[in-house]
Amino acid sequence: MKRVVFLMLGVVALVSICVSMAPAFGQGSGGGTAIYVTKMPPGYRDWKLISLAHEAGNLNSFAAVLGNDLAYNAFHDGKLTYPDGSIIAALHYGHVPSDENNKVFGQVQSFVPGAPTNTQFMIKDSKKYAATGGWGYGHFNKDGSVGNETLMKTCAPCHAMASRDGVFARYAP
Amino acid sequence: MKRVVFLMLGVVALVSICVSMAPAFGQGSGGGTAIYVTKMPPGYRDWKLISLAHEAGNLNSFAAVLGNDLAYNAFHDGKLTYPDGSIIAALHYGHVPSDENNKVFGQVQSFVPGAPTNTQFMIKDSKKYAATGGWGYGHFNKDGSVGNETLMKTCAPCHAMASRDGVFARYAP
Repeated sequence: MKRVVFLMLGVVALVSICVSMAPAFGQGSGGGTAIYVTKMPPGYRDWKLISLAHEAGNLNSFAAVLGNDLAYNAFHDGKLTYPDGSIIAALHYGHVPSDENNKVFGQVQSFVPGAPTNTQFMIKDSKKYAATGGWGYGHFNKDGSVGNETLMKTCAPCHAMASRDGVFARYAP
Repeated sequence: MKRVVFLMLGVVALVSICVSMAPAFGQGSGGGTAIYVTKMPPGYRDWKLISLAHEAGNLNSFAAVLGNDLAYNAFHDGKLTYPDGSIIAALHYGHVPSDENNKVFGQVQSFVPGAPTNTQFMIKDSKKYAATGGWGYGHFNKDGSVGNETLMKTCAPCHAMASRDGVFARYAP
């Protein structure tokens, strides 16, 4: 088996290094042709907060995980699966020290969101995205361009390892 | 001058260790009697996201900074002062590794919100809270009890050192 280090579309996980025995894309998820999300859902920045995430190490990334009402309610109510129409957004930033805050504190302790790095989405549509576990994955670089095919192929296999309907994030109360 | 290490009510800063030459409370902010926020504003968990914060070191804290519409709009539009009625909420959690995520990634890199630790508020009312720079400060422990007097006295002097109307947080786009 070939071990592949790949970038994963992790909603809790930002763009996370994921070491996996990745199957050929589409295998193990019902077959069919993978369809990616290529247009940002409108209004996502104003959605409710689901959780936060920090990926340490080389990724050095900070994320806000937001959801539309269908997704938010499923998270809030602790559902183990998400209804069609659920959309989860992960807004990624650099994890950078705040010079202003640290001057006040007298030590380097305060980290805040730096420049945006990318924005990712998971859209639940069990028919349209049947080939990728019912979720459509989207990745938008900071200039708005979509993630390339190599990156996009890593999303579904990695999320298939998450225990709750392919979702890593948990609701932060 | 006596240097005092005090816990600060930092909206971007969680409950942050702040080293400061703290004035007697009320000095330098127009005098008067300090009034604290003793009741949580309803519905704050569903407010829009302003920013995130991570305090490293002993605090080991993760925060979501949310705002009501008045506060959110002021942040979003880059205002340097906040209108009366603005409310900023800082939801604090432990900054803990996610065992589930790290198993998938094959290394300890993923940090997520742990148990809630406290929730803090800043409410802008330039008359009511004149003694503390126009902001009323509130701190609620995880059991819902309010912060003690010693803690509450640290909020205003530390926030007075923030460059934008006593607010440390910046809008995360």
